[in-house]
Amino acid sequence: MSKPSNLPVSGARLWDSLMEMARIGGTPKGGCNRQTLTDLDGAGRALLRRWAEAVGCTLSVDRVGNMVLRREGRDPNRPAVAIGSHLDTQPTGGKFDGVLGVLAGLEVMRALHEARIETEAPIVLINWTNEEGARFSPPMMGSGVAMGLFTEDEVLAKTDPAGAVFGEELRRIGWQGQADPAALQSLGAYFELHIEQGPLLEQEGIPVGVVDRALAQAWLDVTVTGEDFHAGGAMAPRRDSLVAASILVQAVEQIALTEGGRGTVGRITVQPDSRNVVPSQTWFSVDFRHGDEAALARMVAALRTKAEQVSRVRKLKVAVEDFWYCPLTPFDPALVAALEDAARTRGLNHTVMPTGIGHDAVYVARRVPTAMIFVPCEGGISHNEAENITPQWAEAGLVVLADAVLATAGRVKVE
Amino acid sequence: MSKPSNLPVSGARLWDSLMEMARIGGTPKGGCNRQTLTDLDGAGRALLRRWAEAVGCTLSVDRVGNMVLRREGRDPNRPAVAIGSHLDTQPTGGKFDGVLGVLAGLEVMRALHEARIETEAPIVLINWTNEEGARFSPPMMGSGVAMGLFTEDEVLAKTDPAGAVFGEELRRIGWQGQADPAALQSLGAYFELHIEQGPLLEQEGIPVGVVDRALAQAWLDVTVTGEDFHAGGAMAPRRDSLVAASILVQAVEQIALTEGGRGTVGRITVQPDSRNVVPSQTWFSVDFRHGDEAALARMVAALRTKAEQVSRVRKLKVAVEDFWYCPLTPFDPALVAALEDAARTRGLNHTVMPTGIGHDAVYVARRVPTAMIFVPCEGGISHNEAENITPQWAEAGLVVLADAVLATAGRVKVE
Repeated sequence: MSKPSNLPVSGARLWDSLMEMARIGGTPKGGCNRQTLTDLDGAGRALLRRWAEAVGCTLSVDRVGNMVLRREGRDPNRPAVAIGSHLDTQPTGGKFDGVLGVLAGLEVMRALHEARIETEAPIVLINWTNEEGARFSPPMMGSGVAMGLFTEDEVLAKTDPAGAVFGEELRRIGWQGQADPAALQSLGAYFELHIEQGPLLEQEGIPVGVVDRALAQAWLDVTVTGEDFHAGGAMAPRRDSLVAASILVQAVEQIALTEGGRGTVGRITVQPDSRNVVPSQTWFSVDFRHGDEAALARMVAALRTKAEQVSRVRKLKVAVEDFWYCPLTPFDPALVAALEDAARTRGLNHTVMPTGIGHDAVYVARRVPTAMIFVPCEGGISHNEAENITPQWAEAGLVVLADAVLATAGRVKVE
Repeated sequence: MSKPSNLPVSGARLWDSLMEMARIGGTPKGGCNRQTLTDLDGAGRALLRRWAEAVGCTLSVDRVGNMVLRREGRDPNRPAVAIGSHLDTQPTGGKFDGVLGVLAGLEVMRALHEARIETEAPIVLINWTNEEGARFSPPMMGSGVAMGLFTEDEVLAKTDPAGAVFGEELRRIGWQGQADPAALQSLGAYFELHIEQGPLLEQEGIPVGVVDRALAQAWLDVTVTGEDFHAGGAMAPRRDSLVAASILVQAVEQIALTEGGRGTVGRITVQPDSRNVVPSQTWFSVDFRHGDEAALARMVAALRTKAEQVSRVRKLKVAVEDFWYCPLTPFDPALVAALEDAARTRGLNHTVMPTGIGHDAVYVARRVPTAMIFVPCEGGISHNEAENITPQWAEAGLVVLADAVLATAGRVKVE
């Protein structure tokens, strides 16, 4: 941060705004509970609007509540360059997940305004509705509707656990607009700055991660069927579904390590679920991810092979079934290069990495050239009131974002 | 069965009685649903009473419903030699679990009666109340009260899932008597014939198992605590509680095989139990059994050692806690020898084996010299309507029981 700034953004001002926004829904433990479409969400949105309008942005809101704050370009017909993320949080969320990306975008707007910089393309700042999916499931609804993955009707009809309806809550807090969410498909570029939500950057001491793709995902259901058997009975004749499943749980980890992907068994159940009965059936979920779809296919195949082997040796049935598949989402090479250039120019150490985690950017990337920036977070902890970053990390992400946005939108002049 | 019978019992008559009793609560699939203290249990008890009284036995019923059918000995003051088991079944039970032992005892009474054999000691046939524990938990209530493991009051106050009270149901079906259940602690000997409920005898082609002890049991709770982590995050920093638990589940099997005991993980749960979250905590149950308490202690110690190792290597916490312990229950060497002699005399191949499964005999053995006989059952299947045995297996168990009872009670004369 000692080098001259390409765009004179202020890390201190960003930090102050983060702290001020965090008071809306702030928790005693230092976290934030500002769930989507609550009064607190409304208050957070209003604060963002006030801040952005104060630096000349104009607001439009679409029919699912996505906020778009626009700073005009010299050529209003050029597709806008967007910066976006989300202000909503988990019930026991932190101060930075999503909020950093929105308020860093705000700081870019502020710096452009103060420096009276004109750009060729318009620049827009987006606060997507309901990224978290904590109150209304699934997550990333606002960006999902905008990019055509969900219909407006299905999202507006969603209910929270208390029975409140999404569309009614959106109107109740006064944030249903008239704009067509699908209009955002014509954005020229989309940047999102986000905390890593993993420990790698912190552990390696690298302040900036340039995210070049979202991993492909294969979710599977595995059902092992043996035979129930009294726990007092001999070992030899057993066909224990849980011991077999345990071998496969370890295989999931091993396969992920071998292929350089990710493999997780997050759920497991046994039947009949009795202390003194050998489980006749064990079911578990598998979540495989990889930045290369061919490698992901090899991971699934390796698990099937292992399942067949276990089935044969232990004389039981193992069914490996596809549950869900999400293809690889490559980000835009030119935008990735712009982020790398920005990091280099600022003298910031960076690494190119994938995101294994869903973000609005992953949906946006299906229609709009997209790239993301990660900054470290302490211990990789997120979705937790203890979520924390340093002002230096926030500023590192900010300057890389600012410079890449400016390069993409085209600086015209400084008056 | 070709050798001359020491006591002229009839395998055919036993089989006929088994089939007749099985009609009370018989299911379309060929099983039996005659749960304890139901009207059907009452009907089964009445049939047994009628059959036993027809051959000169006198009935007494104790305050928890245990039926004792007595055939007097020449010396009424000698402790009685008992044969017992249970007529109650699981909801989807079979025709033989428990019933074989009771009706084989009946056949002994019939044969003694027909042959007009007098014995020194009285012989009693016991039908224990609620061995199964399916309707009222825990199992083995009648024998448990008789041997002082449960109080009468606690058992009489038990309720079934529908809210019916044990004591009220016992009176409703007309089977609460006046006798003191604890009087059965002064029995001189106790024999129980039962299906193996495991596949070993059938697999090895051995018709008779002489059971010389009930395994010691150590039940444990194992809790592995790691850290939850997004399934999209990298593998290296993970502290996955389920992968660690999977290693220990396999260790439970391996330890049991190494020590020649039994090891079962029958229950497992994970938190937060979400497809795309690495489980922060995994809990599972362990059921270790062995015929030698020192070996059982080694099994527990081996699991603790493995748990410490996994904890160290994977940087997570593993707590191994004692949940329940049941000491080794040795059966009576003289009665075991009597059963072995009977098998040898009858020319029946036999093996001496432990029971890993609870039976009324295991409670009775705490106060009364006890031994058991196992006969094969098809595929080891029990607690199932498909439970099945052959008439030959039933007869093999019957003749060994009859001869050992007669030898123990002391044949006086054949008139």
